[in-house]
Amino acid sequence: MAAYEALTVASLPRRLGGLAALTDRLGPAAAWQVREVGDGNLNLVFIVRGAGAAHALIVKQALPYVRLVGDSWPLPLNRSYFEHEALIRQAARDPGSVPEIHHFDREQAVIVMEFLHPHTILRGKLIAGEKVAGLGAVLGRFCARTAFRGSDLAMDAAAKKADTALFLGNAALCDITEQLIFTDPYYDAPRNHHTPELTPVVAGLRADPAVRAAAQAMLLRFTAGAETLCHGDLHTGSVMCTDSDTRIIDPEFGFYGPMGFDLGMLLANFLMAYLSQPAHRDDPHEMQGWLLSVISDCVAAFGAEFATLWASERRGILHPQSLAPDDSVRDAVLAHIWQDAMGFCGCEMHRRCLSLAHNADFERIADTALRARLEARTLMMGRQLLIERASVPDVAALTALARDYDGKDIL
Amino acid sequence: MAAYEALTVASLPRRLGGLAALTDRLGPAAAWQVREVGDGNLNLVFIVRGAGAAHALIVKQALPYVRLVGDSWPLPLNRSYFEHEALIRQAARDPGSVPEIHHFDREQAVIVMEFLHPHTILRGKLIAGEKVAGLGAVLGRFCARTAFRGSDLAMDAAAKKADTALFLGNAALCDITEQLIFTDPYYDAPRNHHTPELTPVVAGLRADPAVRAAAQAMLLRFTAGAETLCHGDLHTGSVMCTDSDTRIIDPEFGFYGPMGFDLGMLLANFLMAYLSQPAHRDDPHEMQGWLLSVISDCVAAFGAEFATLWASERRGILHPQSLAPDDSVRDAVLAHIWQDAMGFCGCEMHRRCLSLAHNADFERIADTALRARLEARTLMMGRQLLIERASVPDVAALTALARDYDGKDIL
Repeated sequence: MAAYEALTVASLPRRLGGLAALTDRLGPAAAWQVREVGDGNLNLVFIVRGAGAAHALIVKQALPYVRLVGDSWPLPLNRSYFEHEALIRQAARDPGSVPEIHHFDREQAVIVMEFLHPHTILRGKLIAGEKVAGLGAVLGRFCARTAFRGSDLAMDAAAKKADTALFLGNAALCDITEQLIFTDPYYDAPRNHHTPELTPVVAGLRADPAVRAAAQAMLLRFTAGAETLCHGDLHTGSVMCTDSDTRIIDPEFGFYGPMGFDLGMLLANFLMAYLSQPAHRDDPHEMQGWLLSVISDCVAAFGAEFATLWASERRGILHPQSLAPDDSVRDAVLAHIWQDAMGFCGCEMHRRCLSLAHNADFERIADTALRARLEARTLMMGRQLLIERASVPDVAALTALARDYDGKDIL
Repeated sequence: MAAYEALTVASLPRRLGGLAALTDRLGPAAAWQVREVGDGNLNLVFIVRGAGAAHALIVKQALPYVRLVGDSWPLPLNRSYFEHEALIRQAARDPGSVPEIHHFDREQAVIVMEFLHPHTILRGKLIAGEKVAGLGAVLGRFCARTAFRGSDLAMDAAAKKADTALFLGNAALCDITEQLIFTDPYYDAPRNHHTPELTPVVAGLRADPAVRAAAQAMLLRFTAGAETLCHGDLHTGSVMCTDSDTRIIDPEFGFYGPMGFDLGMLLANFLMAYLSQPAHRDDPHEMQGWLLSVISDCVAAFGAEFATLWASERRGILHPQSLAPDDSVRDAVLAHIWQDAMGFCGCEMHRRCLSLAHNADFERIADTALRARLEARTLMMGRQLLIERASVPDVAALTALARDYDGKDIL
């Protein structure tokens, strides 16, 4: 087996041109057109077009370091293995939700998969004011199906333990989350940066011991709450859509964690889309209203799908048929998931304004004074979700809170 | 390597007589005297005496089934491997707390270890009214040291994940706990049995959906709360004492679980010793007072040792120095541990009266009407701990509750 070597636009046809998985779909490699389009933080991503029947394929290859930072920050190639393993499970648990896999090479950390077309990254759509039909429902159902079907509610207990053990090998990616989401935002960490005008709000947030303690309580939930296989990085940059189709990509941060983790991260990103809208258009209200409806749809779909699976697929050791749990028990489990989700949501809102990896919703706002005003709302709403999450019992309370913060003059 | 074969009193000297680890201490095998003394539920235990300097050694061998039930309930031999791994970590984390290991044979599932002498099983002592100086402090310190030093407060994050993955292999032993502690007690499971006169109280307990839901919430904490390496079976039958020395044995149920798990299980067993005392002596009050002081000492030692380690050994990712957590943060972590402990305590009190493995504290009470009266108190106190644990904020509230139930006429 050849040692790992990063692909290039030039070498890709030569190196992958012998694989039937590609040539069957793309035709002979001699006619391939290759473009590198990776705009994420970690990997190489190539679009390969050919003369064959398939429009194109995606070739994703892990780099042995964090692309965003450079080779000073090494990162193991085996994340590609975990991404592939997670994609297989997600495809089984929510068929059609993730790209189809055509080839995997563990040594080269290469996944060849379906080219989603004409899908584009959801975050860009939301910034551009483009709506996606059914968005919240698809994502809520994905979160519910993967959460439920990967948990002790559904899986064989020993199989779930073995799978948890497998994904504990994805420690390096968990380390990124542990540092960048739960720790760095809450002190003056070297990798941090924030909009200059935001400094007084940041100082206030970091001075509050209750905020730090709550973030670390969520870190304990992250490191020691192996309830299900999570996507691990479910933000609007990990979702690709047309105007009516939604797909989920990039689960290389896959790990066993709380059933509310993915939901909370996702909601945070919709909330940031909502709170940043005033910078992206003259009249943000319609798009903002739609974003809140996406949040409502997402949580409603999560709850409905979870209830469906609770009634039909509860074959694990947890809340077994022998104990005849009634709907109030299911609702208590959902409330537990929701409380976790709110805590993770708050942390994600903080780290996207404070830590290493910001998001385009705010970064594309050239007027830093305006950006800081919107980020200040984000930070303070995140703070409330984090330390007062028990007072946000449902999605109606969450969207009401969002409306409240959208009108707040914090800076 | 020879295939696994169960040892017998006759075969042991022949099969182990060539091991220097034994002959160095016991002298030549020809002079060994072997006695099988296993009174637990799972294993063979031999005391081997010889002419050498050591008084004797213990040879513990796993059987491929549950000894209590027979070969109809198979159980993997690799539990011996996990016991050995757990013993190594406990010896490092709380030196002197566990028997010294002299030899381990993974294939034969044999651990040769220190013979504790003149120690006897704590449960028997408590039934006999024998006190042990320093008991609560030693056990509280053991729980704190193992909880803290095996957690993300102290360990390297990747090392902790790798060790969690390793112990997830101990799935068969976790399965026993998952079924016998968190599930079977709450319905009419085939393996259950209870004192006949207790039936009305059992029926009431099992009819309460809140009790079942709370027990299953604790099961979720058990299966998905990998905070630290737990002993996993820390009852008074897993503790051996003289009148002033205390040692912990039998961690074959070792698993990564909540920091409050071992503490809660242990407290439950002291509470059952307390509640069963009236059957064992004419004037139980002095022994009962001492048992409550053991509980108080244990929890005080846990808190004090946890605080010491918090101040001096917090080198993990959780609550790092960079976030400068103050004492209130530490106390919030302790409160989280305590709440888990109370929930596990309640479940343990239930299963020892209802499920497969009862305890001698109650089983030795020949008068079943009296036994049922005392078990009824145990069940109802366990119920309160389980479903109202937030209203038992500290050990003073716990011992007050015990006094309260000790006087209650439930049956």
